[in-house]
Amino acid sequence: MKTNSVYLSNKPLSEARELWHQALNACEFFAPKTTHIAVDDALGETTAKPVYAHHSSPTYNASAMDGVAVRFQDLGQASEASPTRLSRDQYLPVNTGNSVPEPYNAVVMIEDVYKLENDDIELINPATPWQHVRTVGEDIVATELVVPQGHTIRPIDQGALLAAGITEVEITARPLVTIIPTGSELIEPGSKVKPGQIIEFNSRILAGYLSQWGAKVIVHPPVSDDPELLEAALLEAAKNSDIIFTNAGASAGTKDFSRSVLGNTGEIVVHGVAIKPGKPVILGLIGDTPVVGLPGYPISALLTLHLFGRELIYGFSGKPLPEDEFCEAIMSRPMHSAMGVDQFVRVTLGQVGSKLIATPSGKGAGSVMSMVRADGLLTIPSGSEGIGAGETVRIEMLRSRKEIDSTLVAIGSHDNILDLMANFLHRLSQPVRLSSAHVGSMGGIMAIRRGEAHFGGSHLLDEESGEYNVSFIKRFLSDLPLKLINLCYREQGFIVSKGNPFDIQAFTDIIAKDLSFINRQKGAGTRLLTDKILRDSGLEPEQIAGYNHEEYTHMNVAAAVLSGSVDVGMGIRAAALALDLDFVPIAEERYDLIVPTLFLDDARMKAALELMSNDTFRSRIEDLGGYNLRNCGSVMYEQ
Amino acid sequence: MKTNSVYLSNKPLSEARELWHQALNACEFFAPKTTHIAVDDALGETTAKPVYAHHSSPTYNASAMDGVAVRFQDLGQASEASPTRLSRDQYLPVNTGNSVPEPYNAVVMIEDVYKLENDDIELINPATPWQHVRTVGEDIVATELVVPQGHTIRPIDQGALLAAGITEVEITARPLVTIIPTGSELIEPGSKVKPGQIIEFNSRILAGYLSQWGAKVIVHPPVSDDPELLEAALLEAAKNSDIIFTNAGASAGTKDFSRSVLGNTGEIVVHGVAIKPGKPVILGLIGDTPVVGLPGYPISALLTLHLFGRELIYGFSGKPLPEDEFCEAIMSRPMHSAMGVDQFVRVTLGQVGSKLIATPSGKGAGSVMSMVRADGLLTIPSGSEGIGAGETVRIEMLRSRKEIDSTLVAIGSHDNILDLMANFLHRLSQPVRLSSAHVGSMGGIMAIRRGEAHFGGSHLLDEESGEYNVSFIKRFLSDLPLKLINLCYREQGFIVSKGNPFDIQAFTDIIAKDLSFINRQKGAGTRLLTDKILRDSGLEPEQIAGYNHEEYTHMNVAAAVLSGSVDVGMGIRAAALALDLDFVPIAEERYDLIVPTLFLDDARMKAALELMSNDTFRSRIEDLGGYNLRNCGSVMYEQ
Repeated sequence: MKTNSVYLSNKPLSEARELWHQALNACEFFAPKTTHIAVDDALGETTAKPVYAHHSSPTYNASAMDGVAVRFQDLGQASEASPTRLSRDQYLPVNTGNSVPEPYNAVVMIEDVYKLENDDIELINPATPWQHVRTVGEDIVATELVVPQGHTIRPIDQGALLAAGITEVEITARPLVTIIPTGSELIEPGSKVKPGQIIEFNSRILAGYLSQWGAKVIVHPPVSDDPELLEAALLEAAKNSDIIFTNAGASAGTKDFSRSVLGNTGEIVVHGVAIKPGKPVILGLIGDTPVVGLPGYPISALLTLHLFGRELIYGFSGKPLPEDEFCEAIMSRPMHSAMGVDQFVRVTLGQVGSKLIATPSGKGAGSVMSMVRADGLLTIPSGSEGIGAGETVRIEMLRSRKEIDSTLVAIGSHDNILDLMANFLHRLSQPVRLSSAHVGSMGGIMAIRRGEAHFGGSHLLDEESGEYNVSFIKRFLSDLPLKLINLCYREQGFIVSKGNPFDIQAFTDIIAKDLSFINRQKGAGTRLLTDKILRDSGLEPEQIAGYNHEEYTHMNVAAAVLSGSVDVGMGIRAAALALDLDFVPIAEERYDLIVPTLFLDDARMKAALELMSNDTFRSRIEDLGGYNLRNCGSVMYEQ
Repeated sequence: MKTNSVYLSNKPLSEARELWHQALNACEFFAPKTTHIAVDDALGETTAKPVYAHHSSPTYNASAMDGVAVRFQDLGQASEASPTRLSRDQYLPVNTGNSVPEPYNAVVMIEDVYKLENDDIELINPATPWQHVRTVGEDIVATELVVPQGHTIRPIDQGALLAAGITEVEITARPLVTIIPTGSELIEPGSKVKPGQIIEFNSRILAGYLSQWGAKVIVHPPVSDDPELLEAALLEAAKNSDIIFTNAGASAGTKDFSRSVLGNTGEIVVHGVAIKPGKPVILGLIGDTPVVGLPGYPISALLTLHLFGRELIYGFSGKPLPEDEFCEAIMSRPMHSAMGVDQFVRVTLGQVGSKLIATPSGKGAGSVMSMVRADGLLTIPSGSEGIGAGETVRIEMLRSRKEIDSTLVAIGSHDNILDLMANFLHRLSQPVRLSSAHVGSMGGIMAIRRGEAHFGGSHLLDEESGEYNVSFIKRFLSDLPLKLINLCYREQGFIVSKGNPFDIQAFTDIIAKDLSFINRQKGAGTRLLTDKILRDSGLEPEQIAGYNHEEYTHMNVAAAVLSGSVDVGMGIRAAALALDLDFVPIAEERYDLIVPTLFLDDARMKAALELMSNDTFRSRIEDLGGYNLRNCGSVMYEQ
């Protein structure tokens, strides 16, 4: 007997949408709403009605020049040979913008006016009616259209509206949105985080996107896990705002009150949608106010906001949703998906040769960085079991095509220098974005083989020859013209707690003292090094506690040691130093970049290679610790 | 002897730029400037430094599920046949996000937990190390790069920064800009405009663009034409702000003090640049503060702001100028330009068939509406005498390509219904933008012949046959398959002041009473009508005072009558009614749309034609007055 029944309904997305739209239509939520605003404050707003000129511009016949206003009839056949002389009562000095009153009907430029005694003037050219005069309504005539309905007001439009005598316009209203973060574990940013506490940053992400979509946003202070407090906050928000989002508490945990409280104070339309991430989302109403209960994980919250929140913001004022930009890309690796669930996958995109390659940017609904890195969103529809590697997929773009085109794609082994490189490349006058996927050296070689990366970092030791990388290239990339360019030599060793409290010097210490180890994933150069050392020492993997506990980067290994979850891991000195841990060197290894010849002349790749002779870059690498740059930039091998 | 010498130097643009940049570099204006800001306020700001994680995220080993934390070793070979029983001291109930403290190292989902008596639980599956646990640093490890330098901060970045323990970031500084409008003639928007007064709207346009480029803007109250007041305002602004713009007073009028005052308080680097519009621009410095004296005409001010102001805003924080978008288009009509002057021409753009057509959107540096309508900016360089019709030109785009692709291009006779049509089209769910150039019926036929318009309005009466438009089509568009579709019948007649004070009933009244007339341009259907009536009455054009005074639209004719500049003009009833004037009907005429067959199936054109059977549209036309829709939408002729 299970005690916690899962009460989520898990409705298919289309069905959930239909139910939700029915409920919203029943309370006429999507009826367009408008408001009046001063033209001075209307920049970026959208007109709800066409706007017609109140008065003409110019409103009077205005001189277009500095000069004198005259009657054109008076100048007759004026010429150099026979100039026309006008007395002061026959002309009017005018500056640009001055009125040209009756009986005057033309302006002569100051450059063509010869002054005589007694304020008389002499003119040597005839004039045409209304020359150099901006006549009434030349720019716009009263009642003419200034801007149509549905127009986004630009600075020039503000000018035209004011020129036409309009000081207020009717615009589409922006909804007032309240975000209610819930959970006793939430603490404000900047506080010291104790285990079990979570920095309340979700509301900032949500508020940012809601503002960008056009909402006015109020963020309620976090409400702790108390149904009465949540109920009070919801009722207050329903009174004051047009739309409510709660964040967290939508799921089935012992402290997830959103459903019960919303059920008491309002109406639940949908709880649980067959999407991943974002399944526990709640869609409901308090009176006529929509309430969306967003799940707690940042990516789940963001995705459900995108699916259900965005249409509320645009729909409130009757605006159509902006069209998303899509592109076609080739999937670099297979993605499995459960039947019956619409799955949303964050991907990075990179133009490698003729192929636009999509690669998952990380998983886990808690991974904010996977979304920071993401260039696009792939939907695997509920009817599909997944996407095969090499399949063409349609991606909703989260970055401009231009940014994606400026992306240099690195797939392979991780090294801290890549972070440094990313930053140096990004601040070039033609910024290059380094998209770096850490899948280990062998993963990088395979990605290059499939034409998915511009380069890959590799430190694969061939035990027989003692040579790095070359034998692997000959075996797996035999047909591909490429250069193997050294980036660095680096120290590998044991990453241990400050002071090396267990005095670890070799794997035998780990076994003898029953310590816990953290390993790197299969295919990583560091894993090969670990395995070689074990073999050389005649040790079996099973003797090492934690041999099967894998992490994907040096930094994650160091972080595990720092947290105390494990006692020791294998990694580079820079990672240990970065987290102020201790380091026991075991080997120096070579770390090279494998660069297909095809990409050597690519401007993005060239920018990366040029960094290797940049003194500032090199000295910043040395600051990281544990590096030797004696061959940095040298070609170690080519084919 | 000329009394007002033109003291502008009229430097070539490139030379002016070089002098200006030298002066700015001398005071290190372009050195990057940065400032610190709370992450909460950093949305849309640009990082001045790379930002590295302060602490890891998660900061502790966190449960990824609601369930129980266990030691994976305790579950051994648990199975349905042989479940593992754990007592309360062997497990810890956890919700998502809770800490998984030592000695626990795995989480079992609540759905897989069977509760027994005494808080014991039973589990039927083995566990792997750290399953359903978000280990320390899973998302980001302390010291890893969160966002690089030069990155524009998005909501998701704010979340990632806060998650990584960062609450403040160093960003590129925004300059504080003061705009000083000058001129005693300036009045605030919303005031009643007296002759000689100008609504102060320029500062709103300038402030809007400056804000969009990233400046913080202060608009000083208008300073009247008094050198001492201007000097005080400049000195105050130089103390408080990073960049100053004055608006107007840069030219050579008797009240243009900008040069003399700036010369006294600071240094003038350039006065007068060989550009059109914008020639009188002043570039100077007060101490290290750049001062740009923008000319008074709105378009001159805007163009010189674009040329000299934009680079100051971006340059202040060391940012590169954003790249402008360009397109290639075909010029629809010749543009003459003076040698030695860089001339900037506002154009509308329209995709007509396979050609992207550029047409000047109006001239006159005072024409704000020409800029409201403009889709792009054409530069005719100083070495060129102009551009020929049909020549391919490079256009800086002011609107997105998507907006331009949604544009329906009408060139031809003007009718007030076109304004109404523009608005109805713009509020469709797929908005269509109507770009309407008013060049008269014959001008429209010629544009269609050159393939520059999707349709044109025409009301050309063939005197012999008494038929409208058809004989002109046969003569000028004989090879082009097209349909002639009626839009309306409309009343033409005399537009006169309210009450018709001179009791004008015929042209003979105008001659007899020595009244002033305003005419339409050659090629306009209304001009042909006027000429026909004169001939039918045996009158000569020379007998009509003002016969050579031409305007381009019905509304401009009505505006001239309303202003009192003229006594009478020929035009449609709707124009007279719009401005509350009186109207003396003379003839009913047919107004048709000429639509090449090629464009009949174009979605934009179809949307326009569908309007003709839209009851709301038709009733709005009738509201305008003077229209009869008995054939609206009917094909009058096709070939």
